[in-house]
Amino acid sequence: MLKKSILLFVALLSWALFACAEEPPALYQLSTIQALLAGHYDGVASVGGLKKYGDLGLGTFDRLDGEMVVLDGQVYQVLADGQVRVAPDNLGTPFATVAFAQPTIIREIGPFATLAELERTLDALLPSANLFYAVRVEGRFGALKTRSVPPQRKPYPKLIEVVKTQAVFEFRDIAGTLVGFRSPEFAKGMTVPGYHLHFIDATRAKGGHLLDCAAAGVRVEITVLPRWLVDLPEHDGAAALPKADDEELRKVEK
Amino acid sequence: MLKKSILLFVALLSWALFACAEEPPALYQLSTIQALLAGHYDGVASVGGLKKYGDLGLGTFDRLDGEMVVLDGQVYQVLADGQVRVAPDNLGTPFATVAFAQPTIIREIGPFATLAELERTLDALLPSANLFYAVRVEGRFGALKTRSVPPQRKPYPKLIEVVKTQAVFEFRDIAGTLVGFRSPEFAKGMTVPGYHLHFIDATRAKGGHLLDCAAAGVRVEITVLPRWLVDLPEHDGAAALPKADDEELRKVEK
Repeated sequence: MLKKSILLFVALLSWALFACAEEPPALYQLSTIQALLAGHYDGVASVGGLKKYGDLGLGTFDRLDGEMVVLDGQVYQVLADGQVRVAPDNLGTPFATVAFAQPTIIREIGPFATLAELERTLDALLPSANLFYAVRVEGRFGALKTRSVPPQRKPYPKLIEVVKTQAVFEFRDIAGTLVGFRSPEFAKGMTVPGYHLHFIDATRAKGGHLLDCAAAGVRVEITVLPRWLVDLPEHDGAAALPKADDEELRKVEK
Repeated sequence: MLKKSILLFVALLSWALFACAEEPPALYQLSTIQALLAGHYDGVASVGGLKKYGDLGLGTFDRLDGEMVVLDGQVYQVLADGQVRVAPDNLGTPFATVAFAQPTIIREIGPFATLAELERTLDALLPSANLFYAVRVEGRFGALKTRSVPPQRKPYPKLIEVVKTQAVFEFRDIAGTLVGFRSPEFAKGMTVPGYHLHFIDATRAKGGHLLDCAAAGVRVEITVLPRWLVDLPEHDGAAALPKADDEELRKVEK
């Protein structure tokens, strides 16, 4: 009788775990890029909560306090003064995208002289322009440029105003990792289309939102993500957010 | 010893079920509206597979063979000749959206003379224009107009060509249910923005994609869906799908 119960429990448990586990690899996104463009900088989830959905990714923090880099399950906060700290689990985030790294496309590539050139090389490795991809690029970069943003006060200005005050960091001969995503063109309006990459150096002391980079050779690991999971906050009521404006998006990302 | 094992299994099982269950209510979408606009009519998942993600919804079938209506977990196929059948679990679908009905907004509304008027009344019930909603509208409709589409042969024509041959059905004094979704404007490019509703009558013998309707009074049940879950098929390789064209979308949906 007891043995039967145990068998039943094992069967049920296996089923429950199986039901959870058989889902395809997903890109998880908290909120939308146009909510961020519109100035919704208050945290709507916690850093700890994000970790449930991925161990690699990027985003920003409550009050737009720096650039988020998620690598190997650790969440780093690149502040506007260039300092990097490990973000505590209870810190809020208004926008982030994460995924679990399960790379199936692994290559050594290079050299490339610009981010645009790197992106073209990465594109050639992808099976389709209509899926999401998590990207990890590791190596020594001859030149690399990032930015970060300072925390904001209410009433929050639009992101296009904030980036006018962004801090830009230029590095030479720096070892580290680019992490981020490639999203299909049709996802524009809710996320950054094409590549969106953040950087953290090998000593975890420097980083930011990637603006440009060059390298002789790097290691690329790409995870194919056929599923997109978006959690939408309410953002205090009824005003309909517009689709992301192309020109604004270009100005805040590049 | 055995009792301890049982307790451990119960604890693990509870955890596994809890881990599954604590997710927010989600709108599940298979593929994108612009893949359908572009003529990707081959099934990429099965009717049976869809049921895992919802018991209410809409879509179409392999080869664009009719309109899908999902109500109370049953999947109905409204064929172009007006006949309705229960779709078998192994039938393919190229595009569908489903959710589990867990309505929190329940009202008696009406009268309304047009679909546009119904939509305005529904909009006034919603807490935000920036979330997804599952909608169920039940009652007797004084007038109601639907359409369905015939199965296509390869090479598949674009959807805008197919709808020129659609069958339109007009009903008077018909009892039944509208099921579907409201999506935020910013989701355009991947789904139908605003309301997308299909209809099935109370006898499960008539239905289709809703074009217009009028009623003295109906019962509305709305489920708030703060999560969007999209599964993207590869669609045979690299050609990047464009964002959904506004004009095309209007022509095929209205």
